[in-house]
Amino acid sequence: MQIDAGRLRKSVEEMARVGATPGGGVHRLALSDADKEARDLFGAWAKEAGLSLTVDEMGSMFARREGEEKDAPPAAAGSHLDTVPNGGRFDGAYGVLAALEAVRSLNDQNITTRRPIEIINWTNEEGARFPISMIASSVFAGLRELDVAYEACDSDGKRFVDELERIGYRGDVPCKPRPLGSFLEIHVEQGPVLITEGTQIGVVEGIRGLRWMRFTFHGVRDHAGPTPMDMRRDALVGAAKVITAVREIPRRTGTELVTTVGEIHCAPNVVNVIPERVSFTVDFRDIDPKILAQAETLVREAAKKAAEGENLGLDVDTFTATEPLAFDPIAISAVENACTAAGFSYKKMASAAGHDAHHLAEICPASMIFVPSEGGKSHAEDERTGWEDLARGAEVLAGALLALANRP
Amino acid sequence: MQIDAGRLRKSVEEMARVGATPGGGVHRLALSDADKEARDLFGAWAKEAGLSLTVDEMGSMFARREGEEKDAPPAAAGSHLDTVPNGGRFDGAYGVLAALEAVRSLNDQNITTRRPIEIINWTNEEGARFPISMIASSVFAGLRELDVAYEACDSDGKRFVDELERIGYRGDVPCKPRPLGSFLEIHVEQGPVLITEGTQIGVVEGIRGLRWMRFTFHGVRDHAGPTPMDMRRDALVGAAKVITAVREIPRRTGTELVTTVGEIHCAPNVVNVIPERVSFTVDFRDIDPKILAQAETLVREAAKKAAEGENLGLDVDTFTATEPLAFDPIAISAVENACTAAGFSYKKMASAAGHDAHHLAEICPASMIFVPSEGGKSHAEDERTGWEDLARGAEVLAGALLALANRP
Repeated sequence: MQIDAGRLRKSVEEMARVGATPGGGVHRLALSDADKEARDLFGAWAKEAGLSLTVDEMGSMFARREGEEKDAPPAAAGSHLDTVPNGGRFDGAYGVLAALEAVRSLNDQNITTRRPIEIINWTNEEGARFPISMIASSVFAGLRELDVAYEACDSDGKRFVDELERIGYRGDVPCKPRPLGSFLEIHVEQGPVLITEGTQIGVVEGIRGLRWMRFTFHGVRDHAGPTPMDMRRDALVGAAKVITAVREIPRRTGTELVTTVGEIHCAPNVVNVIPERVSFTVDFRDIDPKILAQAETLVREAAKKAAEGENLGLDVDTFTATEPLAFDPIAISAVENACTAAGFSYKKMASAAGHDAHHLAEICPASMIFVPSEGGKSHAEDERTGWEDLARGAEVLAGALLALANRP
Repeated sequence: MQIDAGRLRKSVEEMARVGATPGGGVHRLALSDADKEARDLFGAWAKEAGLSLTVDEMGSMFARREGEEKDAPPAAAGSHLDTVPNGGRFDGAYGVLAALEAVRSLNDQNITTRRPIEIINWTNEEGARFPISMIASSVFAGLRELDVAYEACDSDGKRFVDELERIGYRGDVPCKPRPLGSFLEIHVEQGPVLITEGTQIGVVEGIRGLRWMRFTFHGVRDHAGPTPMDMRRDALVGAAKVITAVREIPRRTGTELVTTVGEIHCAPNVVNVIPERVSFTVDFRDIDPKILAQAETLVREAAKKAAEGENLGLDVDTFTATEPLAFDPIAISAVENACTAAGFSYKKMASAAGHDAHHLAEICPASMIFVPSEGGKSHAEDERTGWEDLARGAEVLAGALLALANRP
């Protein structure tokens, strides 16, 4: 469906001025003064577009365009206006403003839909200020209690609910599950796949499940000089063997599994002392629960083998586990069809990061649309997506949203 | 040569009470009040044994027993009375007191020697307080300027020379090279070889050379989720490959080379971020300069291969290099012959750590004697050597010292 690329760009640029940083990014933490200003701006634009605006108890904003059947569960789309500290211009805001552009274009073309359409701005998606990411959509989806969310505190000890009051966005609409026809979220990819392959659109089929494990090897601290190699119990050598093995696991599973050792701690960490205790994390993600389980088995085996080979003690702790999520084929097809209709190249892919759409998938058919991100940069001031890519994404969103708004 | 094991034990136990810690060790930093007390005690014992005592400009103490030829360069033996913070009872003090016991035994047995004998207590061997280890013996051997040594400061900013004055041990004998006939130093092994093999004495043939290198891999920081494995430049994977390779290098050289990665730093060191920059140290030591050079080549090759394999930038810095030292056969033979005469099992070995004997080898035939150390513990309160092992060592030292004092 056709949209107005110039108007979209103007909206994105104007929104990016709210909390703009000297480095070309945006610093707009949830429930800050900048967040209030962004909300006010979005609310004014929604009203200009003839939408009715409500705010729920978590501060999430719902801009509604009525449908021919007022009581039909609405087709929704949206994302978030908050950012991480010194974040990018597009992460979140683009998803809200592309949805707004879709509705503006429906208005331009005098298109009515069977279902109402709602554009949603979810509060505190990033979790950068109040450290529970996607907190508002989790309450909306019935996954978390409102009272618990209200007590979340920022690093200065300020409560979520007090800051919500302070900026005037503690709404009166109950934040709890209600019928939605569908939910779409468009977002920059936050990874290098589309830009590297030259693909225009990512059709997101699901969100990868994740395991975070911590391995700790216990060896014996000794002086590096007088201790012969065959009398050593070197915890860092054990860790190095596992880190090397972890890199190879995706080659063995032959899937899109990703595995990362991001964090390592070595004690005593002195040039001439044999390491006594080394701990490191393993992050692995896949869309297939069986592959996740296989990867966990393989890394545990590698650690056990390293512990035996270097004569080390071993502790293993899986400290975070989220299961993979497959989006609903209804929503996925709508996005795919919109790509085909527009003649854009697309790739079915999984999201590696969490998004509000993950929670919405609990209560309605949901999917996501990705647009290319230069260098895969994310959560950084130099996050970049070309204006043509942003326009293409908005066109796909508009087409898919229209189709979902008209489905029986 | 026979010694009085009970008297040796009594001296060692009494000296260990100076700066004794609740944990069973000794805390006797150089030029502290405890060090002064230890020096006074040693000086008093030396005088009781009929020795003349001099102190040089660096505070090193020389207790001299005259020989038949007054002008012949003396046969010397000694070590140090200072310790690391919360160190052991034997590291250093045993070397001074075993030499004292040797001279006491010569006195008991009315044995005179051709050359004079000197027992030396070297100032600030550990470098734990004034951070240049073996500082006094380095000035004595002409390897460092007195003025530079005087300006060394402890962590409170106190100068070496001021603390030397304060405890009354700034002597007037010039600290500079003078003819010595030989130097022997007996010491606990600080490693597990003798205790593990059940060998009674280590005859030290030399001190291993050492290289300290720092390798830094430069990759690209990316989110662990959306970055496919084949688009990664993971600095930690590069490091892990080298750490594994470093462990294997001694197997390839087939020597007593030891290699250790003791220190590693990973940035940004976050569970879900691909490491951008990882640096680590490599410590390797061998008695043969050719093996050291070969090891350096092998580890550089491994790093280059890892950098190519993971598409990383690489910096290499050799920040410390000491060459291997071979002790003089005259001194080594004297020790070996004393072992044979006493009927003790012995092993020729290299010292992995530095000792004052290293500097003395610059100006005279020198060697060392090692005694077994339980678990190879060193620089720790639970450093332990059995009294029988200490007595055996002192017997070997006395025999070797007597032989060297009588050589033409």
